[in-house]
Amino acid sequence: MNVLDLGRVELLDTFGDDLTVVNAARVSYNKESTELTSKDEKLIKFLAEHNHVTPFFHPQIRLRLKMPIFVAREWYRHQIGFARNEVSRRYVDYEPEMYCPELVRERDEKLKQGSKAGGVTDNALAVAMIKHANESAAELYQELLDMGVAPEVARTVLPQGMYTEFIETGSLAGYARLCKLRLDPSAQWEIRQYAEAVSTLLREKFPVSWAALS
Amino acid sequence: MNVLDLGRVELLDTFGDDLTVVNAARVSYNKESTELTSKDEKLIKFLAEHNHVTPFFHPQIRLRLKMPIFVAREWYRHQIGFARNEVSRRYVDYEPEMYCPELVRERDEKLKQGSKAGGVTDNALAVAMIKHANESAAELYQELLDMGVAPEVARTVLPQGMYTEFIETGSLAGYARLCKLRLDPSAQWEIRQYAEAVSTLLREKFPVSWAALS
Amino acid sequence: MNVLDLGRVELLDTFGDDLTVVNAARVSYNKESTELTSKDEKLIKFLAEHNHVTPFFHPQIRLRLKMPIFVAREWYRHQIGFARNEVSRRYVDYEPEMYCPELVRERDEKLKQGSKAGGVTDNALAVAMIKHANESAAELYQELLDMGVAPEVARTVLPQGMYTEFIETGSLAGYARLCKLRLDPSAQWEIRQYAEAVSTLLREKFPVSWAALS
Amino acid sequence: MNVLDLGRVELLDTFGDDLTVVNAARVSYNKESTELTSKDEKLIKFLAEHNHVTPFFHPQIRLRLKMPIFVAREWYRHQIGFARNEVSRRYVDYEPEMYCPELVRERDEKLKQGSKAGGVTDNALAVAMIKHANESAAELYQELLDMGVAPEVARTVLPQGMYTEFIETGSLAGYARLCKLRLDPSAQWEIRQYAEAVSTLLREKFPVSWAALS
Repeated sequence: MNVLDLGRVELLDTFGDDLTVVNAARVSYNKESTELTSKDEKLIKFLAEHNHVTPFFHPQIRLRLKMPIFVAREWYRHQIGFARNEVSRRYVDYEPEMYCPELVRERDEKLKQGSKAGGVTDNALAVAMIKHANESAAELYQELLDMGVAPEVARTVLPQGMYTEFIETGSLAGYARLCKLRLDPSAQWEIRQYAEAVSTLLREKFPVSWAALS
Repeated sequence: MNVLDLGRVELLDTFGDDLTVVNAARVSYNKESTELTSKDEKLIKFLAEHNHVTPFFHPQIRLRLKMPIFVAREWYRHQIGFARNEVSRRYVDYEPEMYCPELVRERDEKLKQGSKAGGVTDNALAVAMIKHANESAAELYQELLDMGVAPEVARTVLPQGMYTEFIETGSLAGYARLCKLRLDPSAQWEIRQYAEAVSTLLREKFPVSWAALS
Repeated sequence: MNVLDLGRVELLDTFGDDLTVVNAARVSYNKESTELTSKDEKLIKFLAEHNHVTPFFHPQIRLRLKMPIFVAREWYRHQIGFARNEVSRRYVDYEPEMYCPELVRERDEKLKQGSKAGGVTDNALAVAMIKHANESAAELYQELLDMGVAPEVARTVLPQGMYTEFIETGSLAGYARLCKLRLDPSAQWEIRQYAEAVSTLLREKFPVSWAALS
Repeated sequence: MNVLDLGRVELLDTFGDDLTVVNAARVSYNKESTELTSKDEKLIKFLAEHNHVTPFFHPQIRLRLKMPIFVAREWYRHQIGFARNEVSRRYVDYEPEMYCPELVRERDEKLKQGSKAGGVTDNALAVAMIKHANESAAELYQELLDMGVAPEVARTVLPQGMYTEFIETGSLAGYARLCKLRLDPSAQWEIRQYAEAVSTLLREKFPVSWAALS
């Protein structure tokens, strides 16, 4: 699933489904379901509404994500129940890829943070400036490597819009909370694209739970 | 898998295998394996020896466990990366089952904690006393219920050797640490039986990782 | 602060105050307050209402708690950001103390869990039965010790109403969530008494945050 | 405490001391110390050697840290028991500060990662190139802001060597583990400077525990 210009969200695997949530909850009564009934669906809704989150920590999801560093830094704020392993620019020195927006969003003077929906007046120029800066950074990085500079030092000049890649295992509860916060209109547009991609993938795999938790 | 007189460890499902560990680690170099090679096995050993634990947090295991409360209370000390849902004696009031050791272990005067390997001199008597106490507690519990007492109150008289049951989802790293600590000779004999059962099940599913982490 | 018949909640120390929350939040804007203003109070309310919980994880509280095991087992469900060390009946063998309710609450037939507000018809009898069972358990425990039984084994006969004691360090966010869930009318009466005691103590130390989070 | 060219580690406050560790451990025996004895010191060493880490989770430390983003990204890998709030470039648009090494370290061909101790042959040139790139990035950032670009978008061109600032509350156990891993010679030189600064500050506040955990 492509996101932004060069990003990606790939669902590697899932562990459990809506029934896993039900059976984790029903263990309180020492009962078990083998098939999802309408009663089970009501239970899932009840759990979500009453903030009984533990059953939603049992199903697990594994993703491979490719996103700009400034997005990844916000994504990583979500820690509880997430395991992550990431490409390291201490180890690799292949050519970096950088994010460049098509629409360079305007500051919204009414807000302390965020941006307006449209682009700045000189959008084409702004895009060109960012693209040019990205190319210069990549060239400088290569020049430093050619001078014998260690990759771990050379990376200091690479922009925060550089793409990074990681494998992430997280619980259904963890992704539900992440998406809820990052789909909020006050979240940055770029991270919202990733939250929407994850949301689309998980709604398919956990239809009842995802609807209840959204 | 039966443990103690009435306990059980049941492996419900696993998420990932040794290859999951390898690929979580190799993402640092942006590489991927599709089959476990001898080089991959060396990598797993290297990770375990150098305390690089994150890749071992990706594989997940789901168990259904039945153990005495005094064992479960120690088991629950292990929190990081574990999700648990347990039978609640606020909700259920069926007849409780209680643990009774065959060998009532003797105090070891040289130790502050723990016990000697053998049973006390009057082992048969001690076993009979515990069994009788368990039966009396179960009867009293039933009498209280018959008087209209709420199960959540009546449970106060049930012994700490009562069996409880729960579903647990945890990471490979989490179980490796739990088993390492709870297989130690200083751990109580009863919890060691559970750690051994889990260890046997996971050694089969994650042969290379489990050997490296043990 | 006494709770139940023999329980206790003791506030050992606190780390930070309402201003800590404000300054953790203001670091986003790279600003700092030295005194709590009305603007700061509004910020705290805003953070709580919009579920921006991270700033509330900075203040820490240390308590010494004494509660029955069946209460402690629910208390321990709250894990995130809590450190706990507890008296171990593997190490100690002094006479155990047991909880005995004054009012043995009646089952509420309309509820799957919980109890009615009043006691059962035969309340005096029920109290006497529980008290007697507690005494018998203490005697049996002592007899087993006298026969040379290891404390870690002998404890199996002690009731779940036995008091245990522990030191707990947790964040303001952690206690706010714990109290919110455990002050709910659906929570068991006994745990509500502890949640109320903690709530009273923390409201005094973190007046603005506690009001916002409650 | 200054670190690198423009970085800083500031100890804001500590919660507890070596005695806190001792009393958290002694609660197992239901004992308490009011002054640190040589027996207590032995206990701390014993706990550290036998990997009994829970008592070390009770003391807490609050720091204000200023470090380059590529360092902060590794620092944030350490999650368990850490609370963090950071300056956000979505909210602020003052002139960014960037890290520039005095010695641009050379690649070590024998290593997959890391660098040699000395600088590259053309060290002066490399330093000048990095400094110039940092200045260009700051200028471009300002130009974009002047064109009306939202700060959250403009930041994409800022380098990964840009300084960021955050408040962090963590446990003694958490910092001990972080420093152990980040003082290792295989860790990047820049992060080692921060780990050393933290280590110096905490050794003073927790002399016995820090020596035992190092």
